Amino acid sequence: MNAAPLSGLYAPSLALVTDLYQLTMAYGYWQQGLQDREAVFHLYFRKAPFQGGYAVAAGLALAVDWVENLQFSDDDLAYLGSLRGSKGGAMFPPEFLRYLREMKFTCDIDAMPEGTVVFGNEPIMRVRGPLLQAQLLETALLTLINFQTLVATKAARIREAAGPTDQILEFGLRRAQGFDGGLGASRAAYLGGGDATSNVLAGQRYGIPVRGTHAHSWVMAFESEVQAFSAYAQAFPDDSVFLVDTYDTLEGVRQAIHVARDMRAKGHELAGIRLDSGDLAYLSREARAVLDEAGFTETRIVASNDLEENLITSLKQQGARIDTWGVGTQLVTAYNQAALGGVYKLAALRKADDSGWDFTIKLSEQVAKTSIPGILQVRRFLNEHGKARADMLYNTAEDLPIHLILIDPADSTRRLPIRPETQYRELLEPVFRRGQRVLDLPTLAESRALAQREVQALDPSVRRFLNPHTFPVGLEMGLYEYRTRLILEKRPVRPA
Amino acid sequence: MNAAPLSGLYAPSLALVTDLYQLTMAYGYWQQGLQDREAVFHLYFRKAPFQGGYAVAAGLALAVDWVENLQFSDDDLAYLGSLRGSKGGAMFPPEFLRYLREMKFTCDIDAMPEGTVVFGNEPIMRVRGPLLQAQLLETALLTLINFQTLVATKAARIREAAGPTDQILEFGLRRAQGFDGGLGASRAAYLGGGDATSNVLAGQRYGIPVRGTHAHSWVMAFESEVQAFSAYAQAFPDDSVFLVDTYDTLEGVRQAIHVARDMRAKGHELAGIRLDSGDLAYLSREARAVLDEAGFTETRIVASNDLEENLITSLKQQGARIDTWGVGTQLVTAYNQAALGGVYKLAALRKADDSGWDFTIKLSEQVAKTSIPGILQVRRFLNEHGKARADMLYNTAEDLPIHLILIDPADSTRRLPIRPETQYRELLEPVFRRGQRVLDLPTLAESRALAQREVQALDPSVRRFLNPHTFPVGLEMGLYEYRTRLILEKRPVRPA
Repeated sequence: MNAAPLSGLYAPSLALVTDLYQLTMAYGYWQQGLQDREAVFHLYFRKAPFQGGYAVAAGLALAVDWVENLQFSDDDLAYLGSLRGSKGGAMFPPEFLRYLREMKFTCDIDAMPEGTVVFGNEPIMRVRGPLLQAQLLETALLTLINFQTLVATKAARIREAAGPTDQILEFGLRRAQGFDGGLGASRAAYLGGGDATSNVLAGQRYGIPVRGTHAHSWVMAFESEVQAFSAYAQAFPDDSVFLVDTYDTLEGVRQAIHVARDMRAKGHELAGIRLDSGDLAYLSREARAVLDEAGFTETRIVASNDLEENLITSLKQQGARIDTWGVGTQLVTAYNQAALGGVYKLAALRKADDSGWDFTIKLSEQVAKTSIPGILQVRRFLNEHGKARADMLYNTAEDLPIHLILIDPADSTRRLPIRPETQYRELLEPVFRRGQRVLDLPTLAESRALAQREVQALDPSVRRFLNPHTFPVGLEMGLYEYRTRLILEKRPVRPA
Repeated sequence: MNAAPLSGLYAPSLALVTDLYQLTMAYGYWQQGLQDREAVFHLYFRKAPFQGGYAVAAGLALAVDWVENLQFSDDDLAYLGSLRGSKGGAMFPPEFLRYLREMKFTCDIDAMPEGTVVFGNEPIMRVRGPLLQAQLLETALLTLINFQTLVATKAARIREAAGPTDQILEFGLRRAQGFDGGLGASRAAYLGGGDATSNVLAGQRYGIPVRGTHAHSWVMAFESEVQAFSAYAQAFPDDSVFLVDTYDTLEGVRQAIHVARDMRAKGHELAGIRLDSGDLAYLSREARAVLDEAGFTETRIVASNDLEENLITSLKQQGARIDTWGVGTQLVTAYNQAALGGVYKLAALRKADDSGWDFTIKLSEQVAKTSIPGILQVRRFLNEHGKARADMLYNTAEDLPIHLILIDPADSTRRLPIRPETQYRELLEPVFRRGQRVLDLPTLAESRALAQREVQALDPSVRRFLNPHTFPVGLEMGLYEYRTRLILEKRPVRPA
């Protein structure tokens, strides 16, 4: 279910899911004869979203699917051939369009498996290959990885707030960015820790469990709540969750209990009630008391209404008796930070005479936004319990020694020596080699399980919402020193 | 280009783009014999987004396309047939799935044309038809209309800030919710007032002008900025916009001028430079001065970096010399309010004995969230200059007299009498009749032109960002009184 999500949803070619400048640069590289110069790009974000301490990498399976189906169709090329510059001439000459038509994808891609915990500045993905091809991948990879990682991280935080046993249902399709905005959100929400979705297409495509209750309109379509609930129970005698707040919530709970008694007399149990408005702490406590008193101790209480991790935490602190959380808008849009600022930066370029690499850097007024040169790998050092201790970014280019001293790129006085015998694992795994996929993708459920293990293995201080502890991520000392020299060399020094 | 956007992008059937509860309710209605009871639903939002005074209705063409292609495929039905309840039984019986397979769409739909200015509580769309069908449309209609309206409104606000002559380029694909999140955002951004997009697929599918510059990686792939700019100019001699901030912005401007002189010597003009970081007010003024001094007065200055309407307003107030605004994340995600809370509420149901209508209401703790019963139309009264003066919601059900007194549903003491001779237009237009489309959809460019006329026709006090004036939207007096009686009747009165 995991590996063919987009090719099934979309028309044959999605090569035009890109920014125009990728194609204008491609044409420029081709014109300059630079199309096959070997290049390395890293895809990474600078800061974890939601002012949090970590992110959950996601989107790789979608990216793989897109890359494997990448091809310019005749329609695509006809469209590109129709584009005109301001003087009326063709933007792209036919020879270049022929080149695009015949281009074969030959890049290497390494990436973190979906579900891996990732921190700022760490490459989630590394692309190595002909400059033109590697550049052409940028937009689509960012679109897929940014959004999937953002929502998977939000879901992990909601799981953190809800605790391990509560149910989390994702309800957000109607507030998503169109159909595959919603489909992608459902996928990432499940990967990051959700239990089920209301989105039927996501159920069909990805095998995510689907769940639902009923709408207010169901109640309004009957003369009374009792009639409405009874009719719903007739359709779903063992799986009914009654929405009780169409008119008056606690009165609705009483009507639900009335119907639940009839159901029990016929051998069925009311699965749950849903609260969708009002003071959820108060109403859930009252509803629980009334249900328990009537003998419906197993009937679950589902709550919804703009829920997110902070509100869930607060409701729990107030003693809310909610055991199933319906989460919509806040999860699928990652409302309080609606985008992850992932970037895709050129970090190495083979020298023209093929004598080695030029490692490249993008400067910035702020050192934190300056890119990291090299052909990077992320090494995660583990403590004696196998838990993450610190991450090291290092340059894998040949013949570079590795000094086991990590330096914080934002503050060079923060240094962490690592003992040589420390256990570690390398986070970037081979996905494509010379354009051929070499990785069997895990199922979505396997990625979800990895995400849960990864997040649980973080120290609680890194997982907390308010001022989380900063997990140590450093540059290998040689890389740090190389980067510092490069910055000083590239930055023009002018007298003030 | 406008009418077939989704059917081209998607696989044959998207009937499963819905919440599970639409299907469970459909089964319930079918089981109760209520599937053909005539019902009326309204799609509306309660408050304009971004604390603004208005929204720009959008998404109708996408909704029409979805509705026209709505059909359950064999795969869809096989999936639904495979779903199991908690006791292991089939969620849906085969007879119901056969009913879905053979269902013919027979609803009436009325809607505001795309580009219409719309206010809180006004139906953007009204669906009338068999209860089961009308309910089944809910999720997809909300998904499409909510997001398109949100982004079109954001774009209109950015146009307001940029003024009528500046260029607005939408650059946001990489931060959108997947591929059609980005595609939909590009469409709505253009409709609401953008000039062009970087999204090539949006250019192909919707005929939106595509534009682009180059990335930092282009500069980094050459030995020097001068080499990089020269190479780009060779590819696009009349359409080059140089990104000048890879290393040092003002130094980059000087390098750009150096290359621009060479270009001019060959008969070409540098189209523009782009600033993507730093203090855009200061840097744009400095860049303009340097460009002008060197004789490049026509070279445009493009700026980007998390721009939105408030930042653009501030930059203009600071005398920034920017004439082209590249807008990405903030526009495509509507970052500061990433979802429009549109809802779809049952408002009328034919009586069981077919003797007339029951008008229905969803109560709420807050009167502002209580729905409006009836078969509604929105009448926009115009002043002597043809500009919008006030909107009236009224019930079009037969034989109801219309009293030309508008009552604010949130404050019944605010009443606005309308002279009988006042000119008006009705905002909801027939789109489908008995399942057949009766409206020729305008092109996207026509909808964009309508949006610009509509927004410009609003009083500036309604358009401003800070504490905008509330445009008067009232209920026709008879509707107001009917709704008040219904609320009192439905709300249980309990002693405190």
